[in-house]
Amino acid sequence: MSFRKASLNEFSIIEKYFSTLGKSKGVSLGAGDDCAILDIPSDKQLVTTVDTLVETIHFPSNSSPSDIAQRSLRVNLSDIAAMGADPHWFTLALTLQTANEEWISRFSKALESDAIEFGCTLVGGDLTAGPLSITIQVFGTVDKGKAIKRSGVKEGDYIYVTGSLGEAAAAVSLFEKSLNSTTPLPKNLIDRLHNKFYRPEPRIKEGILLQNIASSAIDISDGLIADLSHILNSKLYGANIEFKCIPYANFLTDIADHKLIQKWVLSGGDDYELCFTVPKKHVALLERMIASKKIQACCIGQVSINSGIRCYDDQGELLNITKSGYQHF
Amino acid sequence: MSFRKASLNEFSIIEKYFSTLGKSKGVSLGAGDDCAILDIPSDKQLVTTVDTLVETIHFPSNSSPSDIAQRSLRVNLSDIAAMGADPHWFTLALTLQTANEEWISRFSKALESDAIEFGCTLVGGDLTAGPLSITIQVFGTVDKGKAIKRSGVKEGDYIYVTGSLGEAAAAVSLFEKSLNSTTPLPKNLIDRLHNKFYRPEPRIKEGILLQNIASSAIDISDGLIADLSHILNSKLYGANIEFKCIPYANFLTDIADHKLIQKWVLSGGDDYELCFTVPKKHVALLERMIASKKIQACCIGQVSINSGIRCYDDQGELLNITKSGYQHF
Repeated sequence: MSFRKASLNEFSIIEKYFSTLGKSKGVSLGAGDDCAILDIPSDKQLVTTVDTLVETIHFPSNSSPSDIAQRSLRVNLSDIAAMGADPHWFTLALTLQTANEEWISRFSKALESDAIEFGCTLVGGDLTAGPLSITIQVFGTVDKGKAIKRSGVKEGDYIYVTGSLGEAAAAVSLFEKSLNSTTPLPKNLIDRLHNKFYRPEPRIKEGILLQNIASSAIDISDGLIADLSHILNSKLYGANIEFKCIPYANFLTDIADHKLIQKWVLSGGDDYELCFTVPKKHVALLERMIASKKIQACCIGQVSINSGIRCYDDQGELLNITKSGYQHF
Repeated sequence: MSFRKASLNEFSIIEKYFSTLGKSKGVSLGAGDDCAILDIPSDKQLVTTVDTLVETIHFPSNSSPSDIAQRSLRVNLSDIAAMGADPHWFTLALTLQTANEEWISRFSKALESDAIEFGCTLVGGDLTAGPLSITIQVFGTVDKGKAIKRSGVKEGDYIYVTGSLGEAAAAVSLFEKSLNSTTPLPKNLIDRLHNKFYRPEPRIKEGILLQNIASSAIDISDGLIADLSHILNSKLYGANIEFKCIPYANFLTDIADHKLIQKWVLSGGDDYELCFTVPKKHVALLERMIASKKIQACCIGQVSINSGIRCYDDQGELLNITKSGYQHF
C-alpha cells in the first residue's frame, strides 16, 4: 500500500500529488511505507467506512476530476457523520485508465481542499491501472460507547431528517436530460443542483450534536424510504411518515410536477442528509436546538410496531411508495 | 458503507455471503451499519493498508473467484507483516459486472477460509456494479513504537530476504504461455506455481519476530530490486548484493535458463517475501533464529553509502539489472 504497487509506474506522480494532503493529529506514519500507523486515543473507539465510486455507475463519465474527488470523499465522510463520529484520516485507492498528470493534479487539488475543510489527512493508498474508480476509506474516532447505531431505534421514536431532500435526484434528472422543463433552467439553479450532487454536505457537526439525543441514524444515500428501512429493519419495526413534513427546496416546484418531486424526495437518494430517530424524552431538547438554529432538522413521522413504511399525503391518503433505493446511471 | 450502497441491489446476497466472515477480538460493531466500530488496546497503534486488484492488470481474467479472493486478502496481509504488525480486521470493496451468486459464493467461501487462517474479521465494505476489481483494506495493531519502518535503515546494515524468490514470476510466465520449456510441466509443478501466485504466504509470524531485530522491512511485491530501492531511497543509500546468495527453488533451472531466472528473482515481484535490513549488532541473534528454524531467511548483501544497487554474479561481475518493478498483465 501507500501508493507502492503502482502498475502505472508513476511513483513520482504519487509523491508529487498524494503524499501530503490535509493535516490532522494522530498520524505516526503517513503515506510512503507499507502501512500507515495511527494513534487512537485511549478514550476513543475507531470508526471506519469504505465506499467505491465507479465511472458511469456513480457519476457521469463527463464529470470533472475535482467533482469526482470531492464527491468520493464526502460520501464517505457522511457515513462517519451518521455514527456521530469525527473524521481524521483517509486512504485513497485510485484506479485510472491512464496517468494523465493534468487530471491527477486537478483531482488532488480538490481532494486536498476538502481534506483541509473536513480536518482529514490522506495517510496512504494505492494507484492502479484500470477502468476509472475511486475507493476511499475514512477513519474517525468517537467517544467510547457514544456512537449512534441503527439498532438503537425503539417503537414510538420520532423520525427526523436534516436539511432538505430531493435536489441531488433532481441533479441526476438534469444530467440525464430527463427534465421536462418548458424553459431552460437559469445558470444559478444548474450550479446549485450540480453542487448538491457533487458536493453533498457531510453532516459531521450535526452527527456529533446528536450523540446523546438520537437513538439511531443513517445518511440518506439510497433514498429516504430505503435508508429509513435499513434503520427499521434492524428491529423489524415500521413507520408512519407525512409527506408534507419532509423539507424540500421551493424551487423544485418550478422544474417538476408534484409526482416527480415526491419520487425525488422519497426515493431519490444522493442528498446525504441524516435521517435519525429520537426517543420522546429527548424531543424537547432537540426542538430547542432546532429553534436556536444549532441544527436544521424536521420531524417527519414516528416509528411504529407495524412493519412497513406508510407515507401519507396532504389529504391523509396513503402514497404508493417504492422501497427500492435509487439506481445510478 | 457496510455494504449499503449496493447498486447491484443485492442486499440479501451481502447479508448471506459477507456479514460474518472470520472472528477476531475488538469488533464493537461489524458489517451492517454506516461504519464499523473497532476497539484499539491503549498500548497499541493501529496499522492499516489498502490494495486494489483489477482484472487483467493484477490477475488473469480466467482466474477463479477463490484464487482472486485469497490473493486479494493475502497481498494486503503481507503489508501488515512488513510492519511487524498483527492483522485483525478488514473491509472489502467489491466491484462486479453482475451479481452471479455462484461466483460470489465461491469468492466468499475462500475469503472466509483465509480470514479464519489469518485471524481476521470482515467488518464492512461496499458492493458496486462495474468492471471486476477488489479493494481490500486490512487493519492491524502493533505495540506502540515497535513497527518496522523503512526509514530505520542504516549504512552497513545487512540485507536479508525470507523464503525464496522467483516462483510467482515464473507463474506469470506460465499464465502468459511465454515459457519455452521443451517438455510440458508436470501437474504438481503447475499447481505449485499457481499457488505461489494466488496464495502467497504473508510473513506475519516472521514480521513479528523481526520487530526488535530489523531496522527496516518491505514486502517484495514489485520485485527485489524495486522494493529494496524503496527502502534505500528513504535515506538515499545504495546496496551491494550477491546473486548467488539469493534463494530460489532448484526446479526453476529445469524450466528456464539462467538469464530468465535472474530476471524472475531480481525483478519478478509477486512473491510477497520480506526484504529486511539488520544492524550488525543484531545479526548474531538473527542467525541463531535462522539456525534453529524459527525463521527462514538469507543474507544477500549490505547497505552502502553509495546510491544505486549493485548485484554481482558468481564470478564477481556486475549484473545489468533493471530497477523497474514488475508490470502486470
